[in-house]
Amino acid sequence: MVDGEVDIFKEFKEHSVAEFFKKNRHMLGYSGKVRSLTTAVHELITNSLDACEEAGILPDVYVKLERLGEEHYRLTVRDNGPGIPPHIVPKVFGKLLAGTKFHRMIQTRGQQGIGAAGVTMFVQITTGKPIHVKTSTGDGTVWEMDVMVDVMKNEPIVKNRTHYPGSWRGTEVIAEMKEVEYNRGKYSVYEYLRRTAIANPHVRITFVDPDGKIHTFERSSLEPVRIGEEAKPHPFGITPDDLLSLSKVSKAKTVGRMLTNSLHGTGGKAVISLMKVLPHVLKKPPRELTWSEAERIVAAFQAIRFLSENRAARKLVEAKKKELTEEERLLFNQMKRYVRKITGEETTLEKTYEVMKALSGVRIRGPRTDVLVPIGEERIRKSLRSNLKPSFVAVVERKPRVYSGGIPFQVEVGVAVGGNISSFELMRFANRVPLLFDAGGCAITEAVKSIDWKRYGFPDFFNSPVVVLVNVSSTHIPYTTAGKQAIADVPEVFNEIRQALMEVGRKLREYANKVNAVQELLQKKKVLEHYLPLIARSLADMSGEDEKAVETLLKNMVEERYRRINELLEKIEGEAS
Amino acid sequence: MVDGEVDIFKEFKEHSVAEFFKKNRHMLGYSGKVRSLTTAVHELITNSLDACEEAGILPDVYVKLERLGEEHYRLTVRDNGPGIPPHIVPKVFGKLLAGTKFHRMIQTRGQQGIGAAGVTMFVQITTGKPIHVKTSTGDGTVWEMDVMVDVMKNEPIVKNRTHYPGSWRGTEVIAEMKEVEYNRGKYSVYEYLRRTAIANPHVRITFVDPDGKIHTFERSSLEPVRIGEEAKPHPFGITPDDLLSLSKVSKAKTVGRMLTNSLHGTGGKAVISLMKVLPHVLKKPPRELTWSEAERIVAAFQAIRFLSENRAARKLVEAKKKELTEEERLLFNQMKRYVRKITGEETTLEKTYEVMKALSGVRIRGPRTDVLVPIGEERIRKSLRSNLKPSFVAVVERKPRVYSGGIPFQVEVGVAVGGNISSFELMRFANRVPLLFDAGGCAITEAVKSIDWKRYGFPDFFNSPVVVLVNVSSTHIPYTTAGKQAIADVPEVFNEIRQALMEVGRKLREYANKVNAVQELLQKKKVLEHYLPLIARSLADMSGEDEKAVETLLKNMVEERYRRINELLEKIEGEAS
Repeated sequence: MVDGEVDIFKEFKEHSVAEFFKKNRHMLGYSGKVRSLTTAVHELITNSLDACEEAGILPDVYVKLERLGEEHYRLTVRDNGPGIPPHIVPKVFGKLLAGTKFHRMIQTRGQQGIGAAGVTMFVQITTGKPIHVKTSTGDGTVWEMDVMVDVMKNEPIVKNRTHYPGSWRGTEVIAEMKEVEYNRGKYSVYEYLRRTAIANPHVRITFVDPDGKIHTFERSSLEPVRIGEEAKPHPFGITPDDLLSLSKVSKAKTVGRMLTNSLHGTGGKAVISLMKVLPHVLKKPPRELTWSEAERIVAAFQAIRFLSENRAARKLVEAKKKELTEEERLLFNQMKRYVRKITGEETTLEKTYEVMKALSGVRIRGPRTDVLVPIGEERIRKSLRSNLKPSFVAVVERKPRVYSGGIPFQVEVGVAVGGNISSFELMRFANRVPLLFDAGGCAITEAVKSIDWKRYGFPDFFNSPVVVLVNVSSTHIPYTTAGKQAIADVPEVFNEIRQALMEVGRKLREYANKVNAVQELLQKKKVLEHYLPLIARSLADMSGEDEKAVETLLKNMVEERYRRINELLEKIEGEAS
Repeated sequence: MVDGEVDIFKEFKEHSVAEFFKKNRHMLGYSGKVRSLTTAVHELITNSLDACEEAGILPDVYVKLERLGEEHYRLTVRDNGPGIPPHIVPKVFGKLLAGTKFHRMIQTRGQQGIGAAGVTMFVQITTGKPIHVKTSTGDGTVWEMDVMVDVMKNEPIVKNRTHYPGSWRGTEVIAEMKEVEYNRGKYSVYEYLRRTAIANPHVRITFVDPDGKIHTFERSSLEPVRIGEEAKPHPFGITPDDLLSLSKVSKAKTVGRMLTNSLHGTGGKAVISLMKVLPHVLKKPPRELTWSEAERIVAAFQAIRFLSENRAARKLVEAKKKELTEEERLLFNQMKRYVRKITGEETTLEKTYEVMKALSGVRIRGPRTDVLVPIGEERIRKSLRSNLKPSFVAVVERKPRVYSGGIPFQVEVGVAVGGNISSFELMRFANRVPLLFDAGGCAITEAVKSIDWKRYGFPDFFNSPVVVLVNVSSTHIPYTTAGKQAIADVPEVFNEIRQALMEVGRKLREYANKVNAVQELLQKKKVLEHYLPLIARSLADMSGEDEKAVETLLKNMVEERYRRINELLEKIEGEAS
């Protein structure tokens, strides 16, 4: 026995998730006076926008900040959303890890069930007061109540609950905070709202600042943003653990039917093909699925993905070739590895071809586009033009992809150059929510930094007048922290952002090339025009013609020669407008 | 009533903290194949080191990595620590937010009660298998068991529990993982262990890599690191919420006694002085303490801090001056604000002086140094020298400070320049644990970047052969994420790191100045020596003396003149050795 052994474990205790986040409030974004205020606004607004969009309402959000004293403010956020049923209010604002969004595979701004209760915790930590909530679902009754978090238990405490008749519909939250400060800098509430408006042209935001000045961000689009459909996990990103989790709750009679019901794009045909390869596994009741069987199913999906992305492999399988070139041998060995994983045993040449042949018939569609709601190419273009008045804009919207867990995501990039832009700026968004903080630790920043912009015509990109807008949409954004201000370096997401940036880079290069070509021609023309009188005089001397006449002739020749400068210029302007 | 209103809240659910971190495993550090492996090693090793140090044992840690297949490894971590009582094992490895460290204000590497169970979750997510634990407290019985996490409930599942006689003491964990990869790069297990050895010279680490090669990081110090004492919150960083939390569990009869018992450095004398200012509040039973009273106590502590740091203010209070200069008026107004907050009402000149006078008698010591365990100035110097063979080393150890919540922390910085160092490197540590990831989002990185190194003699610091080591020690490191790889931008911590860097910068400047002075002298000497024969010849010609004799004379003059170069050089070398 050693000194202290007993003492160490006498202290062994459990603690609630609320205690954890209270002690680590910076993980929720509550560090620094300016940031804490912006975080609170962000949490309440994202809830408002999500609720409005789910209910098909054009969001109209009112934000008011009143200064009550030194580092002491009262924040009011009011929306015209669907309201919150009164029995739900306490959990929304008084319990962490409770909400409508965590278990659903749907693209919303919130996804953790932490944000609103996090605001309540911050309010009570800095002022000792509850948050005040007023809400009505439009059923003729308005509810009001005060909510706090019982930190030790992570349960809500409700006080002063009242209700009265009223025809209003929506939710209003009043949060009094200390240790916060308002300014107009790049991390401020104002900047957050401005960027929210850029990425959400269907939203109207009215902001009353602490001086009483009213700023209105008017909506430029009258169509409500369609809400994304609820997604199913995509088989190309599914893991054995995901399949086992599904198998424990599935009501399907067989594993095959469970796959059809629970996964995206795994219809009857796909399952019939899979059945040839894994008949025993797919006929089992889901509850009897084992880990190694789940691994075999995953391997089969990976083989299908491999075949669908690799034409040479499909050809090889079709031809059942036995004499292989060096390149074909690599492909074949890869397929052999898949088949070993699928069958769980060694394989022969015939067997490998047989299994791959069965799987090459399976078609699994890419992630559904209707589960993701990007800003949209046109909206990004319009927004960058109207907000920044640049001389050139390029936008790329990539197709949806899948990352680990079968989770669909999609990347959009817009780049604006020149015009009213005076310096470099990177605007990061996730599900159309501006990310103002933690830029250093964000996959978007990393991806932008990783590009060799010289290759795209920008020798000093980060000191050029360029605005880069990146928006990542997903049913589950892999945020680095519960504070949701940076995207983690998940390889699939990082690579896809890079691809989008390189694609937009090629557009920039084309533009830069054209601009350079025009500038070169202009330079040549200038030189010619400079020497033109001299040449004209020499020619006139030699030929005995009238000097003026020769000069006019030459001038016309130059103009003719360089007329295409104007054409090129017009074309570039046309693209940029 | 609006479309969808009912549907939205039908989906309202609660979820466990294990579900949350399973879905956001990257928040625990499990993103990327190399990083995930390093994270698992990190979590198990920090637990081993903490346990050894608490029990006063010189840590001897054995780490073995075996490659079982493609992206598939088995990790074994074994220590000679105090062992874990068998009934505690399931919660340590099978339940998140449970542990010995969260509720104690003590400097340990672990502090959240998440790490070990996080490894178990990662193991079961990627392999479907449990973690295997073997442990004995040295009481003659060895326990073995398999542990998993029931993710929906955040509760442990234990299988195959056995025990048998044995005289061994320690803990061994075997974790089989997939989706991981080993390499020797800058984010690898190897690099993690190397840096752990640099900051923990009392630890012996034996590492068997996947090729079977054994790397031993031998200890260079035989004295066990003393474990930090358990701290009490420091009154200068305490918040009203902290006081109210204390008041709910305090067994003291009065608030005054509670302050003496629960806060650092608030002895009887201090409370007597406070009593003069807040007699009513300090005599209350703790349970009756209100928020606004807690705010008044906090304001009193802040005023004490203000007085202790401000000699001019103390003078003013002593003199009770009525005719004030511009500068004194500013000081006085600041004091007035404190007194208003302390008394909760408007104040007069007399009243302000009276209250501040009472408080100016209060002495509150800085945070206790024995609760923090820095690496130590000498150890950093030795470690940098022996590991990097630089030509110069400067080390700064700052005094302990307090950040919000009354939490003590301390910053150490070491800088090594030249010698065997070929490029810039920043080594970040928190409580002597190396931070390899998330450098971009870390207060240490931000602080290093924020310094104008040109002022300290480095025109291009980040391309210079310099290694910067920063270690932050605290009873609660404000990590940005539960993955504990970056320190959040808590203002007090950020500023203190900056102060330390500037202090070390001044030492660097002194060194750079000396080096420059020597180089200048050497240059002058070289020029003189170059022209010396020529001058000697001219002099010899003019004077008729022997040329050789004149040259020797001149040479001796030069040598004499520049003898101090050697002195300077010796001095610099002496400092650097």
